[in-house]
Amino acid sequence: MSDFEITARNEVRRYAKRGKYDRATIDPILDEALVCHVGFALDGQPYVIPTIHARMDEQLLVHGLKGGRMLEHINAGNPVCVTVTLLDGLVMARTVFNHSMNYRSAVLFCRGATIEDPAQKLAALERLTEHVARGRWADARQPNEKELKATTIIALEIESASAKIRTGAPGDDGEDLEFPVWAGVIPLPVVPQAGERDPKQTADYPVPDYVADYRR
Amino acid sequence: MSDFEITARNEVRRYAKRGKYDRATIDPILDEALVCHVGFALDGQPYVIPTIHARMDEQLLVHGLKGGRMLEHINAGNPVCVTVTLLDGLVMARTVFNHSMNYRSAVLFCRGATIEDPAQKLAALERLTEHVARGRWADARQPNEKELKATTIIALEIESASAKIRTGAPGDDGEDLEFPVWAGVIPLPVVPQAGERDPKQTADYPVPDYVADYRR
Repeated sequence: MSDFEITARNEVRRYAKRGKYDRATIDPILDEALVCHVGFALDGQPYVIPTIHARMDEQLLVHGLKGGRMLEHINAGNPVCVTVTLLDGLVMARTVFNHSMNYRSAVLFCRGATIEDPAQKLAALERLTEHVARGRWADARQPNEKELKATTIIALEIESASAKIRTGAPGDDGEDLEFPVWAGVIPLPVVPQAGERDPKQTADYPVPDYVADYRR
Repeated sequence: MSDFEITARNEVRRYAKRGKYDRATIDPILDEALVCHVGFALDGQPYVIPTIHARMDEQLLVHGLKGGRMLEHINAGNPVCVTVTLLDGLVMARTVFNHSMNYRSAVLFCRGATIEDPAQKLAALERLTEHVARGRWADARQPNEKELKATTIIALEIESASAKIRTGAPGDDGEDLEFPVWAGVIPLPVVPQAGERDPKQTADYPVPDYVADYRR
């Protein structure tokens, strides 16, 4: 796996020191996030649609973006931008100016196409399912032919990408350090809660480990 | 405040019943979210950039998207799409096909411009600061002239918008209800943790209530 060249398209200009271009930084962000935001433009009108994704080696799979115009647009080879953001905390500085957030984000510039081959589609669905909860694919009732046909998955080649990461304490300096107010970081983790059983369950099936101990 | 007309641009086509077009649904999603994703297209190339936002009455403020080409593009009157997504839980169905997520998202179609007037910029910064933590503006050291000049805020008019919401249990039905596997929802709340004091603090300032009891 090669890292990404810095070009005009993926260069992090604002706070350039926060920019990263290596897959060792980008891939874990993609693998942790549960939602991505897919951007595309039709006749100059941008659209940003949230959906689920999964990385399959060097490709990115995105799911369920049904809709004639958009799929046609992507399948015609037009560019897509996929962005993933993990918010880690709020940075409460002494100065309004230095207020910030701790985050890890990745911006991917892609092109791709819908997966048509049923076997490939099944493999992609397995990857998407396992991305969300490892072990679920083997436990759940797998897709039948009708469901497979009703499912749309797009496989995207990542042509260019960057990550941007902020960590740590507020960036106040100089005499602002004496400003008399509490400063620090409020961590904002996503904390999975106990699974809420579907009231329509017909038997007391055991809670799988990947539900009981769910974490990213 | 009027609600949004359903047009080709904002219509929720996939799972149309999840689509909402009223401000009473859309505004609370904008007000709860800490991060938005701003989409725009330069010469057909889409970009999706995460940043912070705040609603100011019927406008949306977005912060810090410095960068010549993009600001020029927006200030020239080109369209922007801003999307906000709150992930509430993972829907673990009996069937792979019915796996889903519980979420609340809003997609806004906007046009706008950077705020140039210093008094308006200050008011917008206050709104952004208070959006993140109500009470912080009065406590923190407010922006000086140099900092104000170094800050970019865009005020966007929301021309069209929609929300999309999924709640509740898995959508399995028929004989799938008998499939022998645990099914239900894993709630995924963001749980603010105790504030981590900046190690550079020069005195033991009290933790403000909006930090100690932080919640959205």
